[in-house]
Amino acid sequence: MAIDMASPDSTLDAFHRGKFYLVQPKGSGHRAGMDAMMLAAAVSSDFSGRLADFGAGAGAAGLAVASRCPEARVVLVENSAEMLAYAKRTITHPSNEELRDRVSVLAADVALSGKGRTEAGLCDGAFDFVIMNPPFNAGHDRATPDELKRGAHVMPYDLFERWARSATAIVKPRGGIAIIARPQSVAEILAALGGRFGRIEILPIHPRPDAAAIRIVVRGVRASRAGLSLMPPLFLHEQGSDRFSARADNINNGRASLFGD
Amino acid sequence: MAIDMASPDSTLDAFHRGKFYLVQPKGSGHRAGMDAMMLAAAVSSDFSGRLADFGAGAGAAGLAVASRCPEARVVLVENSAEMLAYAKRTITHPSNEELRDRVSVLAADVALSGKGRTEAGLCDGAFDFVIMNPPFNAGHDRATPDELKRGAHVMPYDLFERWARSATAIVKPRGGIAIIARPQSVAEILAALGGRFGRIEILPIHPRPDAAAIRIVVRGVRASRAGLSLMPPLFLHEQGSDRFSARADNINNGRASLFGD
Repeated sequence: MAIDMASPDSTLDAFHRGKFYLVQPKGSGHRAGMDAMMLAAAVSSDFSGRLADFGAGAGAAGLAVASRCPEARVVLVENSAEMLAYAKRTITHPSNEELRDRVSVLAADVALSGKGRTEAGLCDGAFDFVIMNPPFNAGHDRATPDELKRGAHVMPYDLFERWARSATAIVKPRGGIAIIARPQSVAEILAALGGRFGRIEILPIHPRPDAAAIRIVVRGVRASRAGLSLMPPLFLHEQGSDRFSARADNINNGRASLFGD
Repeated sequence: MAIDMASPDSTLDAFHRGKFYLVQPKGSGHRAGMDAMMLAAAVSSDFSGRLADFGAGAGAAGLAVASRCPEARVVLVENSAEMLAYAKRTITHPSNEELRDRVSVLAADVALSGKGRTEAGLCDGAFDFVIMNPPFNAGHDRATPDELKRGAHVMPYDLFERWARSATAIVKPRGGIAIIARPQSVAEILAALGGRFGRIEILPIHPRPDAAAIRIVVRGVRASRAGLSLMPPLFLHEQGSDRFSARADNINNGRASLFGD
């Protein structure tokens, strides 16, 4: 997928079979991949409105939404100046010309609250949807000397609570949220969404039909009182095969949504 | 499955293809079925030790464990005098002669705590495993004039917390717990197990591969620090078929465990 560029510090990677490209740090930092595509696929294909991609990195998930949903306007929200620079290079890259008008960047810490959050540009009720792929390894899980990677992978204790609080503030009533995370985080995520988002849907992603889930995608609707659903899982591969299942391949390439809507 | 008996108030129902029978109230009360079989199947086939069936009703889940696990000794714990009478009739029924020596009943409210729980016969560290199929409809969900049914179906606000607290007290370190419930209860269940049981495994049960889960079975190990797993789901039917899948049929009939162990 990676194409070496003249720039020595970055790669240009194709997504959605070349519908858009990502400028990413080379050999360091968090490199976007399937997680971002699965998260983006949680947004309904007919979504229309403003969507915030929390902790957007170089913009993979946000651009994937813009690529599949022609009525989506996307704001990539990122706190790391270095990753933000990659997000800007991504948007301005000539290969993304068709999406450019619908994608912007915002330098902000999504863990901010109250006045600080508003002043950072995350205004109450200003969005229709928030997607997030929070750094999902607990600090003790995987220590690394790479500062960029640490920023993307190490999760503070109350991260889901803080990010969900911000999402709650900035989405309109009936707006949506989608989170991709490890199954181990399901209790924290449900606690963070409780009383804020309803109609929760949990969709497990398994590498194959006989293996435990490696990710969950959790979706919810602001201020809904509808109950929780545990959705049919996605199996990335058929049993005994190394190739992606047709469904996983379609979702990964922006040809189908994750929840079938 | 039901065979009318001379007794006008009860039926005799075969489980595990006739390996054991249940004496149940006729046309009223909570009638045991697949939920109890799925819950019982959460116990490993090589389980050995004392198992408590919380809210046992007429004894379906507890007897199903005794039927599949020859080294299990089962205590049916039930608070309703009427259901307890059915549990006793079940145990003493001639068709259950082979299991009788390993199954007993205990009249106790599993929501008790402290001294009251001990005095009711639920002693600290006295069990190796607890299974529970708590009444799973919230009070407002389904009101019914049938008092027996109400007892089995209506769930007080903090039921999972109370039942988990009792299970925590009576199982030994490394002892197990298994709960069957609706997916809507997953947050409450995880909150109730948090800090008490680890190595949590959630196994979703779907009617068919394209439908949302209708039940979850949650299993845990007392005092374990291992993380949570979201296990491969059970599909009761193949897509487009009304017949049980082979796996569901085996589990329902005591020929296989739910988690494959």
